[in-house]
Amino acid sequence: MSRVVYLNGAWLAEAEAKVSVFDRGFLMADAIYEVTCVLDGKLVEYAGHAARLQRSARELGIVVPLDDEALLAVHREIVARNSLDQGMIYLQLTRGVADRDFAYPPPDTPPTLVLFTQAKNVLENRAAETGIAVSLLPDLRWGRRDIKTIQLLYPSMAKMEAKARGADDAWLVEDGHVTEATAASAHIVTDQDVLVTRDLSHALLPGITRASVLELAARHGIRVEERAFTPEEAKAAREAFITSATNFVVPVTRIDEAAIGEGAPGPLTRDLRRLYVESRRGAAI
Amino acid sequence: MSRVVYLNGAWLAEAEAKVSVFDRGFLMADAIYEVTCVLDGKLVEYAGHAARLQRSARELGIVVPLDDEALLAVHREIVARNSLDQGMIYLQLTRGVADRDFAYPPPDTPPTLVLFTQAKNVLENRAAETGIAVSLLPDLRWGRRDIKTIQLLYPSMAKMEAKARGADDAWLVEDGHVTEATAASAHIVTDQDVLVTRDLSHALLPGITRASVLELAARHGIRVEERAFTPEEAKAAREAFITSATNFVVPVTRIDEAAIGEGAPGPLTRDLRRLYVESRRGAAI
Repeated sequence: MSRVVYLNGAWLAEAEAKVSVFDRGFLMADAIYEVTCVLDGKLVEYAGHAARLQRSARELGIVVPLDDEALLAVHREIVARNSLDQGMIYLQLTRGVADRDFAYPPPDTPPTLVLFTQAKNVLENRAAETGIAVSLLPDLRWGRRDIKTIQLLYPSMAKMEAKARGADDAWLVEDGHVTEATAASAHIVTDQDVLVTRDLSHALLPGITRASVLELAARHGIRVEERAFTPEEAKAAREAFITSATNFVVPVTRIDEAAIGEGAPGPLTRDLRRLYVESRRGAAI
Repeated sequence: MSRVVYLNGAWLAEAEAKVSVFDRGFLMADAIYEVTCVLDGKLVEYAGHAARLQRSARELGIVVPLDDEALLAVHREIVARNSLDQGMIYLQLTRGVADRDFAYPPPDTPPTLVLFTQAKNVLENRAAETGIAVSLLPDLRWGRRDIKTIQLLYPSMAKMEAKARGADDAWLVEDGHVTEATAASAHIVTDQDVLVTRDLSHALLPGITRASVLELAARHGIRVEERAFTPEEAKAAREAFITSATNFVVPVTRIDEAAIGEGAPGPLTRDLRRLYVESRRGAAI
């Protein structure tokens, strides 16, 4: 690794990119984030991520310290400085540095803005060919999952527990219904070829890729239902898949002990991945 | 401020105390903490905090990088280096620095250990004389509040919401029962002079001060019931109070619009504060 990291206006070697131990992102998880995919050195679905960042910031009363144009310029510059062709840009915004207190610091406290890149071959994703296995685990996260905060300890724990059970990831379950994956939206396709995706609420993140896939599905004549579904419906589904900014569309071929469909990626899932990559790659900026 | 901060074996001026932006405490709230009160330059209830730190670390598979003796020595040295007479020592332990991933880094990744001090006149606490007002707010925190993690965004939000409502703090309510305050345990005294405190579970933190106060109460002939109580019971209580490492025992004299008891600190609460301070100040090390 020898990346160049953006930190509050400075471009730093990654080993030099450090924040105060008094940063509220470090002490109190008082921070939000976004992950934007990069394809061909261009930003995928940037407008959606920028809009969601503003929404998260507004919900928490954190101010994004750059205007739209400057924020886009930083995204483009970090791609250029890291010669990034494929991968992702991670952005984190915290409420800034202040002596530790549950009460927020004064509103004029400068927020902390960090961006770094991760190179990843997102187009040739083996999981897209083979599908992944997921374990069903209880959703113990906080109650405002619609805000993209860095409170990611439970998703991390769930990921590790899923791996311990021989799966690749977890689907989280609350009150008898699937909410989402640890870091992706969860979808199923019924035996009537209906794409079922949980409706938006405080229980889950409004996925940017999720919204695009639903839009593409509807445009291609696939019936879409936005409603919560049960683990039992999921296990009995014809197809299942996840969506996220860097996974695009990845098939789920096993849920706990249940093989999904034929135990191999289904045709609708493959179509949606292809449609998504074609359209969003073409529209990248 | 010109404190000396402990960071991974180094003693640093606070402006120099910085961690990598890749620290999992900063990126994923993958970290735990403890707050130990300091009185007369000595550590209050140190054994309890040290034991709870080990418990939190064990629950998350994080390794405390110092043995018991060395950890105590660091606590004592930070008091000495900051000439701290009264206040608190904040300790935070993270899973360490690694490129961002929901999966944990290898187990031999060095954890990050930070300690800093805050001076505070904990003995002459005005709130102990006047009592505080609390607002009842929904408890939206994650499901493992028995682990003392830094996922403190919701408690911060609740603190701010309580202030916006003209109160000093919030008592959090889940499934029709009070869990705890934003950063303290919640207690009531019934009109039968029974001290009621929620029983321990994943829903709340096993408070060190809570345990001491229950022990002192029982020893002084006060009847104690460990069970969940409702907001209605709390509003109708004869007395109410919070306990925490740096508040000791602080009366609650208003819950939403309801005055508690006479709207002034009650005798049992005052007794427990006095008993707590006397016994734990005397036992400080």
